[in-house]
Amino acid sequence: MRHVEFPDQTCSIARALEIVGERWTLLVVREAFFGTRRFGDFEAALGIAKNVLSDRLAKLVARGVLGRTSVVGRGNPGDYHLTAKGKDLFPIIIALMQWGDRWGDGEPPVRVVERASGDEIAPMRVTSQEGAALALREVAILPGPGADEAMRRRFGA
Amino acid sequence: MRHVEFPDQTCSIARALEIVGERWTLLVVREAFFGTRRFGDFEAALGIAKNVLSDRLAKLVARGVLGRTSVVGRGNPGDYHLTAKGKDLFPIIIALMQWGDRWGDGEPPVRVVERASGDEIAPMRVTSQEGAALALREVAILPGPGADEAMRRRFGA
Repeated sequence: MRHVEFPDQTCSIARALEIVGERWTLLVVREAFFGTRRFGDFEAALGIAKNVLSDRLAKLVARGVLGRTSVVGRGNPGDYHLTAKGKDLFPIIIALMQWGDRWGDGEPPVRVVERASGDEIAPMRVTSQEGAALALREVAILPGPGADEAMRRRFGA
Repeated sequence: MRHVEFPDQTCSIARALEIVGERWTLLVVREAFFGTRRFGDFEAALGIAKNVLSDRLAKLVARGVLGRTSVVGRGNPGDYHLTAKGKDLFPIIIALMQWGDRWGDGEPPVRVVERASGDEIAPMRVTSQEGAALALREVAILPGPGADEAMRRRFGA
């Protein structure tokens, strides 16, 4: 049975945090984005206890964010890699990184650049379909197809 | 003294998660983005225990994500509102929401639309300065000005 961390939350963010919201989980995902694939390399890069790392990796595999590849000739069950669902966390990882750079203490530890040009990537922005940046006051929240009665009342016109 | 959740992490994501990474914290922030300002309204919308809500709101104020406004003629210390640092979480909240819609169970509970056109906002994408969408393989990680020796070795050319 799945442990539901946020009961009664009809909310896409709650659904996302159930999958990647625990302590350390997004840092394990970050390591996977940095190219880390082996248990020992995750452990060394994160300075995390083996049992916690083992738990987070197992959950990320169970939730479909990481997959495992068999490596011929090695005794372990294989390296970890990001699945399509995991790779789709790219905008979240970059948005968190940029916010941490703007508001956390200290200088940016890493730069993310476009390989082709060597230029820094752009700041993540919420945009219209035409690509125009949208401020918070320029968007509205409407009930979606999965809204419950309370949300329809709350966000209905 | 500040409790440091992720010791020895020279990482912008770790810095961001220290501020907004606890259970419930980003859901409280989501509520603030939905326009919730009063303690009782957060409580009703989230179905969260008073003591947990109280702790998360106090931490978000202490960390500069929420501010409090005095309301004339009311006995409480004032309503909560997003600061500039809090409003800057907008891309993260939207990216998490969109990922939850794509990969979580069920239909999207809410739609986020551009007020002017009524159109859905665009999916969050990592882009170049020119606005071209960048896939994971099209970006590179380089050591930044805040990199420690290990990160310079790891990400150096």
